[in-house]
Amino acid sequence: MNFKKYVPFEQQIAVNLPDRTWPDNVITKAPRWCAVDLRDGNQALVNPMDPERKMRMFELLVGMGYKEIEVGFPSASQTDYDFVRQLIEEDRIPDDVHIQVLTQSREHLIERTYEALEGAPRAIVHLYNSTSVLQRRVVFREDKNGIVDIATRGAMLCRKYEEQLTDTEITYQYSPESFTGTELEFAAEISNKVAEILEASTDRQMILNLPATVEMSTPNRYADQIEWMHRNIENRDAIILSLHPHNDRGSGVAAAELGYMAGADRIEGCLFGNGERTGNVDLVTLGMNLYTQGIDPEIDFSNMDKIQEIYEYSTQMKVHERSPWAGELVFTAFSGSHQDAIKKGFEDMEARAEESAVTTEDIDWGVPYLPVDPEDIGRTYEAVIRVNSQSGKGGVAYMLKSEYNLDLPRRAQVEFSAVIKDYTDTHGGEISSGTLWGVFANEYLPTDDPQDRWGHYHLVSSTSSTTEDGDFSMEVKMEREGEVVTRNATGNGPISALVKMFHQAGVDVRVLDYTEHALTEGGEAMAAAYVEAAIGDRILWGIGLDHNPSTASLQAVTSAVNRYMRDVKAEQTAE
Amino acid sequence: MNFKKYVPFEQQIAVNLPDRTWPDNVITKAPRWCAVDLRDGNQALVNPMDPERKMRMFELLVGMGYKEIEVGFPSASQTDYDFVRQLIEEDRIPDDVHIQVLTQSREHLIERTYEALEGAPRAIVHLYNSTSVLQRRVVFREDKNGIVDIATRGAMLCRKYEEQLTDTEITYQYSPESFTGTELEFAAEISNKVAEILEASTDRQMILNLPATVEMSTPNRYADQIEWMHRNIENRDAIILSLHPHNDRGSGVAAAELGYMAGADRIEGCLFGNGERTGNVDLVTLGMNLYTQGIDPEIDFSNMDKIQEIYEYSTQMKVHERSPWAGELVFTAFSGSHQDAIKKGFEDMEARAEESAVTTEDIDWGVPYLPVDPEDIGRTYEAVIRVNSQSGKGGVAYMLKSEYNLDLPRRAQVEFSAVIKDYTDTHGGEISSGTLWGVFANEYLPTDDPQDRWGHYHLVSSTSSTTEDGDFSMEVKMEREGEVVTRNATGNGPISALVKMFHQAGVDVRVLDYTEHALTEGGEAMAAAYVEAAIGDRILWGIGLDHNPSTASLQAVTSAVNRYMRDVKAEQTAE
Repeated sequence: MNFKKYVPFEQQIAVNLPDRTWPDNVITKAPRWCAVDLRDGNQALVNPMDPERKMRMFELLVGMGYKEIEVGFPSASQTDYDFVRQLIEEDRIPDDVHIQVLTQSREHLIERTYEALEGAPRAIVHLYNSTSVLQRRVVFREDKNGIVDIATRGAMLCRKYEEQLTDTEITYQYSPESFTGTELEFAAEISNKVAEILEASTDRQMILNLPATVEMSTPNRYADQIEWMHRNIENRDAIILSLHPHNDRGSGVAAAELGYMAGADRIEGCLFGNGERTGNVDLVTLGMNLYTQGIDPEIDFSNMDKIQEIYEYSTQMKVHERSPWAGELVFTAFSGSHQDAIKKGFEDMEARAEESAVTTEDIDWGVPYLPVDPEDIGRTYEAVIRVNSQSGKGGVAYMLKSEYNLDLPRRAQVEFSAVIKDYTDTHGGEISSGTLWGVFANEYLPTDDPQDRWGHYHLVSSTSSTTEDGDFSMEVKMEREGEVVTRNATGNGPISALVKMFHQAGVDVRVLDYTEHALTEGGEAMAAAYVEAAIGDRILWGIGLDHNPSTASLQAVTSAVNRYMRDVKAEQTAE
Repeated sequence: MNFKKYVPFEQQIAVNLPDRTWPDNVITKAPRWCAVDLRDGNQALVNPMDPERKMRMFELLVGMGYKEIEVGFPSASQTDYDFVRQLIEEDRIPDDVHIQVLTQSREHLIERTYEALEGAPRAIVHLYNSTSVLQRRVVFREDKNGIVDIATRGAMLCRKYEEQLTDTEITYQYSPESFTGTELEFAAEISNKVAEILEASTDRQMILNLPATVEMSTPNRYADQIEWMHRNIENRDAIILSLHPHNDRGSGVAAAELGYMAGADRIEGCLFGNGERTGNVDLVTLGMNLYTQGIDPEIDFSNMDKIQEIYEYSTQMKVHERSPWAGELVFTAFSGSHQDAIKKGFEDMEARAEESAVTTEDIDWGVPYLPVDPEDIGRTYEAVIRVNSQSGKGGVAYMLKSEYNLDLPRRAQVEFSAVIKDYTDTHGGEISSGTLWGVFANEYLPTDDPQDRWGHYHLVSSTSSTTEDGDFSMEVKMEREGEVVTRNATGNGPISALVKMFHQAGVDVRVLDYTEHALTEGGEAMAAAYVEAAIGDRILWGIGLDHNPSTASLQAVTSAVNRYMRDVKAEQTAE
């Protein structure tokens, strides 16, 4: 591969700012946002939006809270022109929203742009011409003066046509397009001249937008360029300094953030990073990056699924599974150690909340591997932990708990996760919570279907009584291979009584550990019982579920015995 | 949305490095790469790779030139264990490639890891434990000493089990996992202690890998953390400083690049940014970012389609259309002004090459909006420029030229692009080059099917002769609405003769401009003729294609006349 034909950025554009200050800055508030989905985003689509798709995108952006929305390039596209007219004539622009329209610096296009704005209450007219070394030479075949002429003539024409719009409050925006490929002194010179003609002032500021039309270097270099402009542009108070990063080198988000730290006021981008080639900077990522640092993004991301749905409808593009803060897999942990840590993180949140007698919403977020609370953007915790062959006990336990309210003791988690690992190693892929439950039920719970019953013992019924002295006695009907037998025993309680019955039947079972918890709230609550038992030379768990806690515990002991007998039988068959 | 529950990074971890030097550095060579697709990438898949998918990924990575490849977590997954065994037993590891295996710092896992490596010629054993403030409290419930114990015990166990591997050259790697959430002093302390036990030295360096397990802040902060470690770690010469960025805030690429500028030696990542949640840093983007700065990435990206195909097979994930340097849309320009600039850029490249009597491969790359030559990664120029309703003359002209060798004069481009704009406004979406050709042929070229012929005049044949005096005369057979008439005229050449004939027939046509070029090389070359004609009150273009250049020019004049008459007829019908 012939890498030598590429000229390093440093040899193209000199950026010298050894006394830069931006690396010490920290972002503490949201920038002014401008969403350019309907213009820069739209022009990069295989299928540009039709009027219906445009309107749904516009309404989504307004609903999320964007106050500046570039709605089109009306002089270049009839569809864009018609859309601007529709917004104005149908009175669709809320009082606190500015629509923005792009125009090249050419008279017939500028004239047409102002025609499109007739009757708008307020608008941003966005004038641009390309200023880079490369474009000056290759596209315009003009020297610097020629390029300045294009810009200043355009600005004067804006002033001329502005007079035709009596009722519209116009804000100006100027972009020296391909700014990243432009010498800084020249970018400042041309911007100063345009600002002078447009009479930018502290009362009527001009937006100076500095596009990384093509991302040409590491994002710190863009930040240096922005800080240089911030410090060297004339009449800085009359200027809103705006960023417009693209993502050719995959660093659009970083360029926006470092550029904002370097002195910019405003950021232009698109939802989910749509836009030319690799896209504009992603407004969802930028907004959520602020949010998860405790900063109000001033944009509503609380229904991410709806945002994604309308985005996909309007652009006919898909949000990638790994797109930050929104993709289907970004809150997902398959890895066992991650799942375990996340589970502990949630438990810690609950414990801290309980300690302070508040809800988890009121305490600092802190869950390993989860930089955001999925509930904040309308996702559920359940989607976070998913189980496949890479998962360990944490994920399995989490899924049983979150989906079925089963809180397995730690050693039972270890045992059952080995069962699941066997299953996923054999069957491959992810397993759903339904499949997980199927494997669980098959492993531990009795079935009502006698044909499908692998267990030796099946608990039919039990009757127990406690005397005034506290003596406990129990009668149990137990089916074994089609035959129902009734047995009686006494003990401290049902478990010890049942253990005695098994001893009578020749099964050497000792209960090592036992816990029980309610599965649901209320009078008809189900109970789950967990028994760790030593049977023969083994230690294994039995689990029982029943409305009656006592019956659940009997089921649990029976479950352990049945599992033991199944294993013994399987070994005998193998021998 | 409750942003207040999130604690800003600065309040979690202190990073104080006002004398940082990295912002002045420029990357000039490739780092040591380590591809972790088979481990970190794999554990994040809905469907983890089966052995066949693993092997194809491994062979792809080897073929591209990666020399360090993390192949699994053999102590945690039987599939990974078996894969490591397969690589070793089938002698699949090239002499210059190190496989790397991950292990947690726990004895039974470390023991099993060394079992997996039995017989390997060389390997990197990658030991990790989590060190962040959050994980220490929530997951391990240990103080700093307890966490140091986990790490140092693991390192000692590595030394113990290493003795069992007599023929394997072991390199050690240690990761204080969740490094970005760890106090810098503590990260250095625990790393120094592990390096001491593992006897890291200039002769046998230890890889110290500093993961942004979760991306927690802007990438400049990660770079500060890396520079701090670079300056403060003991025995720096005995250490290979390695980065492992994730992409939670969409800045993994920037974190890798700035971290590398800050003193790191090595970067771990995955192709196309696969990996946990939002993914690991994207090795394709990092490599191509170097390449397009004139730096040898030491990785072969020349067949990007094949890389993408195997990636998609192995991971069962899709590469997004806007994924840098590789996505389907990243070299695509739909916008008219972009297309125009790209076309001029290509023309400038050719002109410069011709001037220097070299090929375009030998001159500096410089095409607006195209930061890479698509041919370098096995893509064609044709895919770059695509036409829809956002396109202008540039794209239309480029497509006609690149696909059909037609080099339309500028004003003809303007005329035909309006025809295309009408078509795309009506039909929507993108148009293929085949459709473009259909619209073009229908607009300008005669058809042989009399039923389908919209033109009034159809050129049947022509005979011409030039006398010794230079007098030109021509006889033309022309069909008009089913009737064939023969006409004679003289002139300077065929065009002026045909114009006279049209005058005789009552059509007022004047030729304003005329150009012609060969379409193909060789004796049977086709010629294209372009005629700009004033007819009645209009100016329009006619185009003719023929093996005979003279006939092509006659076709072009006829084409213009026919288009004029069609328009007049349409207007009469409308009235």
